[in-house]
Amino acid sequence: MKPKRSGRFYLRPIGVIRSTLKKRSEAPKQGSEGAPDAWIEIEPWASAGLHRMRVGDEVWVITWFHQGDRDVLQVHPRSDPKRALTGVFATRSPDRPNPLGLHPVRVLEIAGNRLKVEPIEAIDGTPVVDMKPVIA
Amino acid sequence: MKPKRSGRFYLRPIGVIRSTLKKRSEAPKQGSEGAPDAWIEIEPWASAGLHRMRVGDEVWVITWFHQGDRDVLQVHPRSDPKRALTGVFATRSPDRPNPLGLHPVRVLEIAGNRLKVEPIEAIDGTPVVDMKPVIA
Repeated sequence: MKPKRSGRFYLRPIGVIRSTLKKRSEAPKQGSEGAPDAWIEIEPWASAGLHRMRVGDEVWVITWFHQGDRDVLQVHPRSDPKRALTGVFATRSPDRPNPLGLHPVRVLEIAGNRLKVEPIEAIDGTPVVDMKPVIA
Repeated sequence: MKPKRSGRFYLRPIGVIRSTLKKRSEAPKQGSEGAPDAWIEIEPWASAGLHRMRVGDEVWVITWFHQGDRDVLQVHPRSDPKRALTGVFATRSPDRPNPLGLHPVRVLEIAGNRLKVEPIEAIDGTPVVDMKPVIA
């Protein structure tokens, strides 16, 4: 299955976040701001893609901010009205045309098709669309 | 427009890479391995999202590897058959279920809705789906 070159592309979630964070209002703005650990449940069809991942690995997790507003192109950073309106591509706002989240995490535990990672500020139920190793 | 919580999600390209790299065989494996600079042409509808981006900014560019094979779950890293088969989520292979590319770049020039960035190993015509500031 080759992706199309133009037009719209479809993402198929490879997994989902299982977190104690249940609401966007509870989530820190960045993982480094006190986010908890969480489990990533990988879909059975995708679990072969975890082969040779190891505890201790540093990994980029790419999520889909399913509560993001895709019509937003400018925001006040950190939702602070005193900060000047800024293009979403110069911010990490979850409101953006393609609401992809980018999370550097460490793998704490691997149990079958489940990975425990930290820190991650995405809320429970957030779809995961990709993972890649961090390259220094 | 709220994204759906489950099922498939669609990405709408926000722009496209314009590069001297024309074929996947010409592209280095990583941006840090001698990749050139390139222009990103942002779609007019998305250009308001660039507001307050500055020359010198360090930015994550997220691309869609339109020549990736979405059915691949394991690869020999760096296409080297002597290296053990590895799950794609433990590699940076462009062949993966959701062929997203992750590129740390520096903004060299901004001209209207075009950004010159370096280094970037994505080939000419690669769709761009998001950009975010690098946070140390």
